[in-house]
Amino acid sequence: MTDGEVAVVGVGQSDFGELEGQRVTDFGGRAVREALLASGLDSDAIEEAYVGNVASAAQRQTGVVGQAVLREVGVTGLPITRVENACASSTCAFREAYRTIRSGERDVVLALGVEKMTGVPTDVALRDMSGASDAEVEGPMGMTFMGVYGMRANAYADRFGDVREELADIAVKNHSNGLANPRAHLHLDVDREDVLSSRMIADPIRLLDACPMSDGAAAAVLARGEVAERLVDQPVYVDAVEASSGHYLDGDLEYWREELDERVSRRAYREAGIGPDDLDVVEVHDAATIGELMHYEGLGLASHGEGASLVRKGDVMLDGRIPVNPSGGLKSRGHPVGATGVAQVCELVWQLRGEAGKRQVDGASIGLAQNSGGALLGEGGVSTVTVLSAR
Amino acid sequence: MTDGEVAVVGVGQSDFGELEGQRVTDFGGRAVREALLASGLDSDAIEEAYVGNVASAAQRQTGVVGQAVLREVGVTGLPITRVENACASSTCAFREAYRTIRSGERDVVLALGVEKMTGVPTDVALRDMSGASDAEVEGPMGMTFMGVYGMRANAYADRFGDVREELADIAVKNHSNGLANPRAHLHLDVDREDVLSSRMIADPIRLLDACPMSDGAAAAVLARGEVAERLVDQPVYVDAVEASSGHYLDGDLEYWREELDERVSRRAYREAGIGPDDLDVVEVHDAATIGELMHYEGLGLASHGEGASLVRKGDVMLDGRIPVNPSGGLKSRGHPVGATGVAQVCELVWQLRGEAGKRQVDGASIGLAQNSGGALLGEGGVSTVTVLSAR
Repeated sequence: MTDGEVAVVGVGQSDFGELEGQRVTDFGGRAVREALLASGLDSDAIEEAYVGNVASAAQRQTGVVGQAVLREVGVTGLPITRVENACASSTCAFREAYRTIRSGERDVVLALGVEKMTGVPTDVALRDMSGASDAEVEGPMGMTFMGVYGMRANAYADRFGDVREELADIAVKNHSNGLANPRAHLHLDVDREDVLSSRMIADPIRLLDACPMSDGAAAAVLARGEVAERLVDQPVYVDAVEASSGHYLDGDLEYWREELDERVSRRAYREAGIGPDDLDVVEVHDAATIGELMHYEGLGLASHGEGASLVRKGDVMLDGRIPVNPSGGLKSRGHPVGATGVAQVCELVWQLRGEAGKRQVDGASIGLAQNSGGALLGEGGVSTVTVLSAR
Repeated sequence: MTDGEVAVVGVGQSDFGELEGQRVTDFGGRAVREALLASGLDSDAIEEAYVGNVASAAQRQTGVVGQAVLREVGVTGLPITRVENACASSTCAFREAYRTIRSGERDVVLALGVEKMTGVPTDVALRDMSGASDAEVEGPMGMTFMGVYGMRANAYADRFGDVREELADIAVKNHSNGLANPRAHLHLDVDREDVLSSRMIADPIRLLDACPMSDGAAAAVLARGEVAERLVDQPVYVDAVEASSGHYLDGDLEYWREELDERVSRRAYREAGIGPDDLDVVEVHDAATIGELMHYEGLGLASHGEGASLVRKGDVMLDGRIPVNPSGGLKSRGHPVGATGVAQVCELVWQLRGEAGKRQVDGASIGLAQNSGGALLGEGGVSTVTVLSAR
């Protein structure tokens, strides 16, 4: 691999939420147009595209969804490849875009994530999400995603003590951040008591511990370093995109051990030449609040069993030492599964360019995004870690 | 991009057909094990994997299907990425594997294609296949895949005259070849009259003009040239893998114009430094017989309107000038949609190594595979062309 630098030159994101009456091509096209505009590029500058999406074809919206969305914006006659890795689909699309430029094969590549989860029958949407697990084996055991998060939270508490209040405070923080994000799905002003008294989903995970199902799209235009510098004033450099599946820890119920996050993030830190202390802003996969807390530890922001202390000390608040999920995270921004990874990239780019408005993290120059996907027991799915920087 | 050579060191294919009672992990694992064995590699030699699959999660088999299949054979803790591009999914997975090695980033990468289409309710399978088109717009118009092949056949006949007998002869040829392929789905001894009297599906496409829906898996292990030469006696070199979406020829009903095939194949020929006359063996996407005939023209094996002459002269027969679909093609080998692309690669590798048994094309040293996928009108989906050679 050549050592050519790669930068994000422009990003775009549709509103996330229940986009009633809108097709994937509508809001997908909107995200791409915004990213092109921010990049100062016409649609014919795109040489290749990778598209993250989980269930568009299955839910009878449209097949070959990348081609359908890109046709809307006049991007035709090029290689368009859909990438799927459950809730990490669009980070994996972003990773392919990054590597395609880094190898020297292309100068300008688009990464798009798009998903419509509302407006289809709920049972179809739920079936397709459960399809991210092993539907023949885990499904009948009741191993839904929130069920597993509940088991993890209990195993964690068993080892390290009760963290229910800190989990609630994570939800409060992310909803507070989301109030400053006009594109977020859930604009809720909630306090700890609201979270702790919300409906139980999978003990101890309550409704307000869990992210919503959303519609939405996010897009990023990546370019070779020299091209990026000609195009925009503030290219945001891609310093690492790492991904791995887990090792399927058969029979190992130590859910607290985020071996996968650790392995992937250590590789990303090495690739980027930084450590966790160098980070100014972080986006993590908080599909449930316990997920965010465990990612603190997996990413090395806190040692094992100490994640909750970051919450108690206020470190992860917008004005704290290491703000996590300034966008509102999956919890508030929403979780259109195939779009979440690139939406994290959008947030980091806005933060690193100083364009994040009321949720801006002061002076942020290095950011990290962590995005998880897929199967459940033993972390068999995928974790991805992306490091971006402004210079 | 570096100019490092990439070779296929081993391939494997499960039986194609109605694999009753078998999960994707069963026959997927079998294909991977065979490919590893042929490569002389243990499972831990695989550094990264790309997996082509269309509908496993949607049909409630398993999500993150690549991780699930590879776990069966002990391949865990590495980047595993599912790639979907309708019926060309696994060629697109093969393409990513090829580029990942070619860039210098990895030495050994697996490409897998796997699909289970039988044993699920037929309406679910049909819905998921129609999902490869635009289910909201084209679906209600009756634009099924065979419907479009019928329209193409009629448009072709309108311009170039009746080719129904030659289409039947293509089915006869492919079924004859498939009789010599023990892994083929349909072992049928049919003649022209059988085809021309079979049930009408979408005039003029009859049942015996159309491929079946199949279960199956195919795997290929790719390695950097120098690594490949150490591993096996007969590496098969990857000289080109090209892919593109179409231009959506709005309102242009000249279906006969295979602009997409032409564009992609010309690029592949240039990349490989060959022309169509240099080919010894070809596999094409004969989901319907008219598809095979039009691919002859798109690939430059015959000029426009002259595809039928290759059939009449016997050129495309197993002992002809340019044998097409010695495996039996989609028509006889079967069409587990996510596995077809890598299955074409398997066939070419066996042919180029002289391991194809009773269907061996004498002295074959350069082979081409063409695989199509996705949306319908105006060739908006994807076409891929792969060139392999023995040296």
